[in-house]
Amino acid sequence: MPTERSAEATTRALISEMLALFYEKGWVAGTGGGICAGLDADRFLMAPTGVHKERVQPADLFIVDRRGGAIVRPPKNKALRLSECATIFCLLINQRGAGSVMHSHSLSSVMAADLAGGGDRVVFHDLEMLKGIRGVRNIDRHAVPVIQNTPREPELVGQIKTAIEHPDFAASYCILVRDHGAYIWGADLWETKRHAEVYHFLFEATIARARHHGGLK
Amino acid sequence: MPTERSAEATTRALISEMLALFYEKGWVAGTGGGICAGLDADRFLMAPTGVHKERVQPADLFIVDRRGGAIVRPPKNKALRLSECATIFCLLINQRGAGSVMHSHSLSSVMAADLAGGGDRVVFHDLEMLKGIRGVRNIDRHAVPVIQNTPREPELVGQIKTAIEHPDFAASYCILVRDHGAYIWGADLWETKRHAEVYHFLFEATIARARHHGGLK
Amino acid sequence: MPTERSAEATTRALISEMLALFYEKGWVAGTGGGICAGLDADRFLMAPTGVHKERVQPADLFIVDRRGGAIVRPPKNKALRLSECATIFCLLINQRGAGSVMHSHSLSSVMAADLAGGGDRVVFHDLEMLKGIRGVRNIDRHAVPVIQNTPREPELVGQIKTAIEHPDFAASYCILVRDHGAYIWGADLWETKRHAEVYHFLFEATIARARHHGGLK
Amino acid sequence: MPTERSAEATTRALISEMLALFYEKGWVAGTGGGICAGLDADRFLMAPTGVHKERVQPADLFIVDRRGGAIVRPPKNKALRLSECATIFCLLINQRGAGSVMHSHSLSSVMAADLAGGGDRVVFHDLEMLKGIRGVRNIDRHAVPVIQNTPREPELVGQIKTAIEHPDFAASYCILVRDHGAYIWGADLWETKRHAEVYHFLFEATIARARHHGGLK
Repeated sequence: MPTERSAEATTRALISEMLALFYEKGWVAGTGGGICAGLDADRFLMAPTGVHKERVQPADLFIVDRRGGAIVRPPKNKALRLSECATIFCLLINQRGAGSVMHSHSLSSVMAADLAGGGDRVVFHDLEMLKGIRGVRNIDRHAVPVIQNTPREPELVGQIKTAIEHPDFAASYCILVRDHGAYIWGADLWETKRHAEVYHFLFEATIARARHHGGLK
Repeated sequence: MPTERSAEATTRALISEMLALFYEKGWVAGTGGGICAGLDADRFLMAPTGVHKERVQPADLFIVDRRGGAIVRPPKNKALRLSECATIFCLLINQRGAGSVMHSHSLSSVMAADLAGGGDRVVFHDLEMLKGIRGVRNIDRHAVPVIQNTPREPELVGQIKTAIEHPDFAASYCILVRDHGAYIWGADLWETKRHAEVYHFLFEATIARARHHGGLK
Repeated sequence: MPTERSAEATTRALISEMLALFYEKGWVAGTGGGICAGLDADRFLMAPTGVHKERVQPADLFIVDRRGGAIVRPPKNKALRLSECATIFCLLINQRGAGSVMHSHSLSSVMAADLAGGGDRVVFHDLEMLKGIRGVRNIDRHAVPVIQNTPREPELVGQIKTAIEHPDFAASYCILVRDHGAYIWGADLWETKRHAEVYHFLFEATIARARHHGGLK
Repeated sequence: MPTERSAEATTRALISEMLALFYEKGWVAGTGGGICAGLDADRFLMAPTGVHKERVQPADLFIVDRRGGAIVRPPKNKALRLSECATIFCLLINQRGAGSVMHSHSLSSVMAADLAGGGDRVVFHDLEMLKGIRGVRNIDRHAVPVIQNTPREPELVGQIKTAIEHPDFAASYCILVRDHGAYIWGADLWETKRHAEVYHFLFEATIARARHHGGLK
């Protein structure tokens, strides 16, 4: 039976492993992107900003208060700074029950958001992989919100609040940010990994189909 | 000379290795896809459903009866569930002599099925790689059946039966499922790996040619 | 100072390593493709056919006579067979001074051959990477022959002879085979690796430019 | 506290690691591309030319004088030669304060330069990843100079001087060379890695958008 301490160590190691995996997939290049995962009822672990994400070590993570996003315990390395997207992560944890959130800077998320044109959403459909999202069937039309990018990340908060309260997006575990990327979440790190792989597949498939058919099917 | 026990251990290890390889290729992302391989005349080994396929361990596999698809021996980890595609795997084992089957959720298999339009097949031709399929020559026109996707996997069984009994598809070791993926099989794990690589190459080449020429050549 | 024996062991190990590398790049999937490298003035080492190339072990190689392509010493594993392209490899060794030849089944080589349309060549130009081919400048127009595929590999020999004797192709270290792949060679394994990487880059760049401009520039 | 000696060893090892990473990304295939990093106020370390870059060992690097580009200390392996782009690296170090420069032969850099048509620049915009370049905001229109390729690398020097003195390109840490690749730099190896990843993302995103929209947005 793992002690509380070793549960934290496991989560820290898994966050490092996930960042290295996401880097290989091209989702967190150029120090972009991020990840967090719940530690207990009150706190979550979060990767620092401005660093090469695939090289983040277990000891480099911040412990953050899940209510307000305040730093509970910083890493020993004082050069590390908390990402501005802590506020966004808190919002998804508190209002959507996320146990873990990843932030992707993938090319496919940018291209998927482009498919919305001037609209507020991309609708994914006719793909078996939709089943990989909790509660979604392969016959559903699955709407994901697309919001505008802003000069700084905390400025996205208002739009994100609106998107996650919108009934059309109740089934979505993803928010696309135009020209920027995606926030994808799940009940824990493993579901977040699954959702991240599924949504990126949906992005790629929908882009490929749009290319072949000259627009969204 | 390996004992029966060590032959089983070898097959279990090889299934794990193949799933990790297929994951790297993007064929079983987001917990999708699957694999099975014969253990003896009566039973086969099969990966669980709903788990990250690249992390399936040798001990995580189910032993399944090849006639009816019933579980002979589950893994010790009681959280693991048998995939609904056991019925489909049984069908290919019993009616087409498959010794191993893999189920791909690759983007290229989805795009290849799209090339069929409203039709019931994709015909691959003018590619040396056709020789990589048992009994096929590079001058053959090789027809692969394309069936409709269904809400649940066992509902595919009727269409799969029809497809594998259709004389036009007697040479095919692959069934494409629209919006979903592909079932690919061979005499054993190694032939299934070869067939999987060859069919995915055929998918990619045919998609690339269709993109250049604005349709199937 | 290495003994003759250890030089052979080094070459065997390097061939294995190259096959694993080429597999990662997608050049020898589905048991396709091949490689050989000179052992001494009279003999070369060559990979077997019909096996998963990334798993070829140093002990799996054939020693072949460079004049006629006869087997001098087979591997101990009697299940292994010599590839039919031994004749082609001999031709390039004897008539073009190749010290090593690789045979690619890459998608990009197939698509590059498609760019020739009904013609007998693809001309690569306006790419710095041309300098990576021995004796070629970045301002050259570099012609690579494109021949027709045949049902069996030894039937390519006549066309290959014609191509390598054609003065227009005197600078080429590559022959493209329609619907099939490419033969690429160099003075030794290292030059063959460099040439293989350069030619595959030329294929990809020229395909990408043709896609953008709707034809060869 | 690291001694001067171990700082050099660390930089040497990191250069090797970066070259292997860049190779995996397809930026330095076929022995192309290069890298340098500052050693102290007077000297920098630089990779040799004409070798497989992913296999460059820490001991294979040249120590070069940062003012004139003269060799201060060659590697023990006398077969190694200094790259002709030493002059270009010196220019960027002395006139733009680069602490490290990488030279990419990626396909995406060639295609990005193509987007300039007959013009002297590509302008990147509407991408969050712009923030990954020091001093650049995601709302900026970021101009990168595009120069003509020349038969030999030192002949690029005149155009590079003009480009880096041009006020329109004061914010750029990248120069694109038509048909050839890119020079990308930063304050140290880590910033150069970040800039390289960011610029390659900008290349890929802008190419993908141009493909969808039939031209630059």
